[in-house]
Amino acid sequence: MFANRLFFDISDTQKIEELWGKISAEYSSNQIGYYNLPDENLTSDINTWSSTIRNIQNVVVIGVGGSSLGTKALYSMLFHEKKADTPRLHFLENIDPITIKKTLKNIKLEESLFFIVSKSGTTLDTISIAKIVMVHFGIFPNNKYFGKRFAAITEEGSALNKFANEYGLKSFFIPKNVGGRFSVLSAAGIVPLSICGIDTTSLLLGAAECKKEFFERKSTQLLKKAIVYAIKGGQNINVIFSYSDIFREFNAWYIQLWAESLGKKKGDERVGLTPVGLIGAIDQHSFLQLIIEGPKDKSVTFIRVENMADDMLIPDISLKYIEKANLKKDISAATLLNEQALATMKSVINEGVITDEIVLAKADAYHAGYLIYYFELLTSLCGLLFDINTYNQPGVEIGKKILLDKLGK
Amino acid sequence: MFANRLFFDISDTQKIEELWGKISAEYSSNQIGYYNLPDENLTSDINTWSSTIRNIQNVVVIGVGGSSLGTKALYSMLFHEKKADTPRLHFLENIDPITIKKTLKNIKLEESLFFIVSKSGTTLDTISIAKIVMVHFGIFPNNKYFGKRFAAITEEGSALNKFANEYGLKSFFIPKNVGGRFSVLSAAGIVPLSICGIDTTSLLLGAAECKKEFFERKSTQLLKKAIVYAIKGGQNINVIFSYSDIFREFNAWYIQLWAESLGKKKGDERVGLTPVGLIGAIDQHSFLQLIIEGPKDKSVTFIRVENMADDMLIPDISLKYIEKANLKKDISAATLLNEQALATMKSVINEGVITDEIVLAKADAYHAGYLIYYFELLTSLCGLLFDINTYNQPGVEIGKKILLDKLGK
Repeated sequence: MFANRLFFDISDTQKIEELWGKISAEYSSNQIGYYNLPDENLTSDINTWSSTIRNIQNVVVIGVGGSSLGTKALYSMLFHEKKADTPRLHFLENIDPITIKKTLKNIKLEESLFFIVSKSGTTLDTISIAKIVMVHFGIFPNNKYFGKRFAAITEEGSALNKFANEYGLKSFFIPKNVGGRFSVLSAAGIVPLSICGIDTTSLLLGAAECKKEFFERKSTQLLKKAIVYAIKGGQNINVIFSYSDIFREFNAWYIQLWAESLGKKKGDERVGLTPVGLIGAIDQHSFLQLIIEGPKDKSVTFIRVENMADDMLIPDISLKYIEKANLKKDISAATLLNEQALATMKSVINEGVITDEIVLAKADAYHAGYLIYYFELLTSLCGLLFDINTYNQPGVEIGKKILLDKLGK
Repeated sequence: MFANRLFFDISDTQKIEELWGKISAEYSSNQIGYYNLPDENLTSDINTWSSTIRNIQNVVVIGVGGSSLGTKALYSMLFHEKKADTPRLHFLENIDPITIKKTLKNIKLEESLFFIVSKSGTTLDTISIAKIVMVHFGIFPNNKYFGKRFAAITEEGSALNKFANEYGLKSFFIPKNVGGRFSVLSAAGIVPLSICGIDTTSLLLGAAECKKEFFERKSTQLLKKAIVYAIKGGQNINVIFSYSDIFREFNAWYIQLWAESLGKKKGDERVGLTPVGLIGAIDQHSFLQLIIEGPKDKSVTFIRVENMADDMLIPDISLKYIEKANLKKDISAATLLNEQALATMKSVINEGVITDEIVLAKADAYHAGYLIYYFELLTSLCGLLFDINTYNQPGVEIGKKILLDKLGK
């Protein structure tokens, strides 16, 4: 069960209907591909190919932004329920020599698989890291194992796809009409995750359920949230407060999705909403003070897991002089974590902050898929209210040009 | 060399003088203890004690917020230059059963050392985690090794200190007038870091140098930055864009310092600045779009390292069809990372965003110490301009009370 409870309401039914009309039109247009990703089935393609690859201990994703964040989010969230004896997943996403050296140190070529993930196929940092890896292992260009150790995930017909064809590398495709940051449920995420023992079938089922619930209008929470967030001069900082360390990378995925989709110039106007990702209970000792006492420019979404894996009791012992920290009998770590979320939520609501709560029955693949699709929908809705192009990122091109003018050949 | 270059200026010398007067007064009052931490010397106390502890492979910090973030920041930033054959440092900072189980799995009691770190000595999550660990290893209360495996870092006379005395545990002290989030250069950080092979002498030297530079008025950048940040309706979101993965935990430390210190009620008014921590080059593919095209409510501080450890060349090879990503000869990973920072900075300045740049000559302990003290000073300066108490956190007490009313004994 995925439950979303709003602690605010809006009564402007006309606005809700208008927004519903807009997203229905965008969905029906078939121009935005991510809406239909839960219905794609890549399983047989992946299985056919991966059955030819043996003894893999490590899978390495070489990619950045939309090519790594979503995959990382799901891998971290679902690591605890990953199938036994499946490969470990690693990420090379930064042209940082310290990280690259550290990651490659523990990886042997003969038991590893490298995915070069780039929608455009020419992402500078990604290709530069790929070159470092290829030369490090001496596998390119004249090594008969190149095609057994490297594969591409990209758009059909991209430069990377052509390169892969030239050298006999398998290519998996991200559909043309799916933007990088909306691509985690495409081959970009599904291929490495399923090879590493994540239950991608349930993942897509969860996303499909979110799609169905929304487009069959069984709930209006998403519409209402978007309308409240997009009001000018209102809550322009949108915090997600996720209770469990397993959500750390999910928060990073959300930050990209939100910031890059909604920060846009619109003629002379600049619009955008600022995402903040917090981890509970840790950040109760950090950012929370600013939410409680600082400017009223924030909304907060609490995310928690009702039934956590690997739960453990907090021993019912008393430490002399520290009796103040004693708890009732039979409180588990997960209970305390959830109660921390509830108490903090209450204190935030008391201050009149726009608040809602998402409760996942379990931190499993099904609920993770639901959660991903939920935030993608919320992003699309806010973009429609701002009347911007949610799916491009023109602002980052200038820096790329400055760089290539200086360092490019 | 620590260089800080502002790409903006202010001419209001009176305001600068006023602020200088305020911080000089606060400094001289001796009520705020962190200012003098670079001059403390804990080395002999630590060495005397740690010489009695043998064969330690793992040090575990049990603590949250100010008791873990700073230590984690410095450990991550300096891991690459840690002395050989020194223990690994781990953190138990969340009452999350998944993380606790994962961390304890690889730790053997007989080769480990646990620090319970809590200024007040009664932090609920910290004490609960400590109980889990004690019972997990069966070491409390009747085990002669308890005092060899556990130690406390707390305020003198706290409940935790009394508990430690009762059971023969060593206590290290955080001075009374040093708040948790300003405590990393006290025993809270210095004790575990030095035991784990971080050069804390250089760390404190760097901090002392920052202190000297500032209080001898060799530079006015900090004063100018604070004044620009604290202007009402100006840049209320303050981004640090740190180029290297080693800064990930430093960003988290900054977020606590900034949010918890500056988010305060002041009569009916609410003040505060919102911190955002980014990692370059990764977040060029994420939050950057919002900085470039979104609302002009942000300042950006670029942080980069001039000479990175473990640098490596990007191979000068050409991948057929992907020639667009070819670079000039002899570009290293660190060069590309630095040039990404410079190009991105140029594109941000072009948009008229309030920008400055911090360049560390090296990512070593000296520069890390300087950086820590620099941001602590900046925080104090903004607090003085807001005329708030920078060093308390009254807003987080409400949630604690709600929780204890429900779960406490």
